[in-house]
Amino acid sequence: MTSIQTDSFAEQLDATAREVAALLESLLSPVPLAGEIARPDQLISAMRHGVLNGGKRLRPFLVIESAKLLGVPHQAAARVAAALECIHCYSLIHDDLPAMDDDDLRRGQPTVHIAFDEATAILAGDALLTLAFDILSAPETQLPAEVKLTLINQLARAAGVGGMVGGQTLDLHAEQTRPDEAGILRLQAMKTGALLRYACAAGAIAAGADSETLARMTRFGEVVGLAFQIADDLLDVTSDAATMGKATGKDAGRGKGTLVSLHGNDAVRSRLDCLVEEAASLLDPFGARAAALKQAAKFIASRDR
Amino acid sequence: MTSIQTDSFAEQLDATAREVAALLESLLSPVPLAGEIARPDQLISAMRHGVLNGGKRLRPFLVIESAKLLGVPHQAAARVAAALECIHCYSLIHDDLPAMDDDDLRRGQPTVHIAFDEATAILAGDALLTLAFDILSAPETQLPAEVKLTLINQLARAAGVGGMVGGQTLDLHAEQTRPDEAGILRLQAMKTGALLRYACAAGAIAAGADSETLARMTRFGEVVGLAFQIADDLLDVTSDAATMGKATGKDAGRGKGTLVSLHGNDAVRSRLDCLVEEAASLLDPFGARAAALKQAAKFIASRDR
Repeated sequence: MTSIQTDSFAEQLDATAREVAALLESLLSPVPLAGEIARPDQLISAMRHGVLNGGKRLRPFLVIESAKLLGVPHQAAARVAAALECIHCYSLIHDDLPAMDDDDLRRGQPTVHIAFDEATAILAGDALLTLAFDILSAPETQLPAEVKLTLINQLARAAGVGGMVGGQTLDLHAEQTRPDEAGILRLQAMKTGALLRYACAAGAIAAGADSETLARMTRFGEVVGLAFQIADDLLDVTSDAATMGKATGKDAGRGKGTLVSLHGNDAVRSRLDCLVEEAASLLDPFGARAAALKQAAKFIASRDR
Repeated sequence: MTSIQTDSFAEQLDATAREVAALLESLLSPVPLAGEIARPDQLISAMRHGVLNGGKRLRPFLVIESAKLLGVPHQAAARVAAALECIHCYSLIHDDLPAMDDDDLRRGQPTVHIAFDEATAILAGDALLTLAFDILSAPETQLPAEVKLTLINQLARAAGVGGMVGGQTLDLHAEQTRPDEAGILRLQAMKTGALLRYACAAGAIAAGADSETLARMTRFGEVVGLAFQIADDLLDVTSDAATMGKATGKDAGRGKGTLVSLHGNDAVRSRLDCLVEEAASLLDPFGARAAALKQAAKFIASRDR
């Protein structure tokens, strides 16, 4: 029974990933839109390389399922999901740059600055970030104007100086500043948590939901974000132990604290279980309709990817 | 008489620059807004370094004067102007990076990646680009929701793959591709023209102006953009001739074509005069109220800066 559910969840995740990829592909067409002058081949190719890379589209899945739960038309939800994925993909392109994490490979493919060059990678990231706001504000995103403005404003705040980009800055300096537990939690809430929180809140915003439902979905997104990060930190330790024969992971080894390095594997595994339970209970009022979102939270906590 | 007008124009430009700088300073406060988690000092400092640099704020001036001409409330216009300036400043920070133009100085100050580091400069640019859309979408920008969405959408298209960032990509490859006159004009219309065009169109969009007025202001912005670029190319030749004792300028010397390198100084000076005349005649229907905008076009064509 559990295995059948998991299989059908995996199929659902995969189907959504394919749909979002198709939408992103059409949004990254070489044909200029009204108000644009031309879309240079080189730049569009670099943007496509950074976006159409077989990603699991976890954030889009959360947007689309949260939106479905609250009755948002699917087409509008898919566009919000695509906008958020543009933000996520731009952040990976910039993160991979030599001045940042200096990664040559992502998902087994050369990163954008390797496949193209550094300048093009910077510009492709900039263009994807800009495109996210084009997508949300365009007439094709059929939602009430005030709702679209809230989606835009909250995305900007989740992604910008007070969210993801701010978190990346804190992370850059974490080796020197050695944040305490509160500092680590803040860093993680910004760097990875803010977009996941937005993904789950976006459905409620798009639905024009009441403040209690918005708060519930926002908290669900926070919990998913915390679970994502702990699972990531655990994976970091485990994969290093398996492949590199040492017990501490990449981030911990660099001197960046994580909850794992502070409290040990067993304690954070218990914490992870509690988070999955909290995520599920937050969705209880929605009954069986929330099954996919509950499974998504479980999947994110397991990090089978 | 002319000299008195010019002096009062210079004062007006300066007063607007001070006002816009004060607004930008308040928008770059270290205090997080609703929906933000924290604003890291390092990142806010780098953003402020890139923005609060004594710029002339030409684009904000064009926004504010176009908006005033068409009856847009000043406070809303100032916020649109500040958003556009965030985009302009982010583009300068990223342009100055080692992988791009590799400039150490801007306005006599160390560029952001010199004053901080490369990673912080990339992130400061990203955060400013994101902030522009926060500013436009926030409730404090008191304009009708549909108007704000159009301002956001047109800004995204002016700044993104089909506008400024696309133009920067074309410029990166101009030494190899050696564009013909049409190619040079397209590159320039994207790289520098798109934001100037937006600056002048934004007032009409914000005013909810009729399509004829919007087309007139958009054309005015295009003409100003063309004049800006020609003046820049002329300055490039002239300043090089004066300071480096050679007749060809930096861009022409790098093998990037300009209208100056194609047609010579005298021909483009005549073209510049025609553009200033066209700009003025486009504003004739507004009578004396358009004096500041006409002077701005003249100032931009003279490049006394």
